[in-house]
Amino acid sequence: MAATGRIAIVGLGLIGGSLALALRRARPELAIIGVDVDPRALELALSERAIDAGYTLGAAPFDKCDLVVLATPAQALMELLPQVAARMRAGAILTDVCGAKEKLCNEAGLQMNAIFVGGHPMAGTEFRGFVAANPVLFARCTVALCPAVGGGDGRSRREAMETVRAVWTAAGARRLLEMNPEDHDRAVTYASHLPYLAATAIVDALTTSGDAAALARELAAGGFRDTTRLAGDGTLGGAAALNRFMPAAARTLADRLRTLADQIERDPDGLQRRLEQLAEERRLMLLPR
Amino acid sequence: MAATGRIAIVGLGLIGGSLALALRRARPELAIIGVDVDPRALELALSERAIDAGYTLGAAPFDKCDLVVLATPAQALMELLPQVAARMRAGAILTDVCGAKEKLCNEAGLQMNAIFVGGHPMAGTEFRGFVAANPVLFARCTVALCPAVGGGDGRSRREAMETVRAVWTAAGARRLLEMNPEDHDRAVTYASHLPYLAATAIVDALTTSGDAAALARELAAGGFRDTTRLAGDGTLGGAAALNRFMPAAARTLADRLRTLADQIERDPDGLQRRLEQLAEERRLMLLPR
Repeated sequence: MAATGRIAIVGLGLIGGSLALALRRARPELAIIGVDVDPRALELALSERAIDAGYTLGAAPFDKCDLVVLATPAQALMELLPQVAARMRAGAILTDVCGAKEKLCNEAGLQMNAIFVGGHPMAGTEFRGFVAANPVLFARCTVALCPAVGGGDGRSRREAMETVRAVWTAAGARRLLEMNPEDHDRAVTYASHLPYLAATAIVDALTTSGDAAALARELAAGGFRDTTRLAGDGTLGGAAALNRFMPAAARTLADRLRTLADQIERDPDGLQRRLEQLAEERRLMLLPR
Repeated sequence: MAATGRIAIVGLGLIGGSLALALRRARPELAIIGVDVDPRALELALSERAIDAGYTLGAAPFDKCDLVVLATPAQALMELLPQVAARMRAGAILTDVCGAKEKLCNEAGLQMNAIFVGGHPMAGTEFRGFVAANPVLFARCTVALCPAVGGGDGRSRREAMETVRAVWTAAGARRLLEMNPEDHDRAVTYASHLPYLAATAIVDALTTSGDAAALARELAAGGFRDTTRLAGDGTLGGAAALNRFMPAAARTLADRLRTLADQIERDPDGLQRRLEQLAEERRLMLLPR
């Protein structure tokens, strides 16, 4: 990315705010514009020098930016994408951080103005907003990137990919993985969206368990906090809802739970062996590579 | 507990081993006997002075102990309980650490020799065995205790409860909650067993997701590790299988997942509102009290 570049970040929440803070630290020469509907988020980001100037969406000078990063919740992001793309210079670079990529990349491919490189940093916490943002959120994280679509020719698209890679590398990412949007969405179904939905269903079960709920809260040890941590991120649901693989995956998970319920009643010994095996598979899965 | 007491811990895994280490530190005058089928666990516990002597089950001098703690996996614990109780002095105290209490307390109530006080420390990690044991595992944890059953009269049963409370307080527990076994099992259904089963089903879904699995592992960020942490504890399944509320709860969770899958397709906006609400309810639930 040119040392004199100007970048806009739309949505100064946990992800957008952290990206601004990380780039400010790693690339102090970069002009960073913040865009948010919440004036307090803009004020806070200005006061911490995460951004050089703050704008509402309508007033933002996207036509003067080399790169725009969309970092709003998923549903808003789908709606913003064509609006923002239309206001950018032809051949400027548009990217995003949404956890579902297929529908967004399809949408971005319908316009021929900005070059869109879909991105998804695998990082987050259960907290939200600029108040939770920090400059090391992306340290050592993996970022998924999808092939450029929309405007530009082959060469400018390759340069756009390099620019987006450089942004995430500057922000601290360790691994940049290029993949097509469909493969991405199928993978995050298991890596993120299904765990999220299950965590949410468990919180729902607990909050509606009547008399048992009060005692369950007393007895909920760290395991409950961890298992339901993803449920604390209400914005994940937006991405899960944009993921076309989710409904079928959730139904399959429901079938698995029914099978496990049957096994508790009919074959507890066989169940125990299978559970030990899954515990082992998880350990192997999480071994550092 | 008398300063000259002798205690036996059956099963020197994460929980039993940690209890031995914690009591050694807090009550150095206590004689601690370790019982395990694995000679390496006994050796390691002896070498760290967690226990004063190690025995196999057949050779253990339960008749010379004031208190015996059963800390084996759940299924073995159900089988051991009457055998160990029969070998104890009449009126000596038997307790356990199992995560399901109703069936165990019923079993213990069938004998009239030892006084049985069911216990369940709300602590654990995803690691297992004495190699994972540590003297602060129970620091600030909550322990559920069930009313004494089996041998003894009203007074000796009250004293037995005080003794078991003193053991856990010495081990570092912050809150001791007395409750009946049925209430306990219903509560841990939501606090622990259902989250465990869901975590396991997700690991199962991922390991059998074919082509998506490899990429999903690459993209699995901290959220996946946390959400499935409980699945790493293969022994939790034993307790879940002893919990009579589990099959119905697992089926209800399956129904919830199906409803969520339908909502992704039919009412993503309503779903998003509900998910934000559940994220908020979880936050309130986990607020320190």
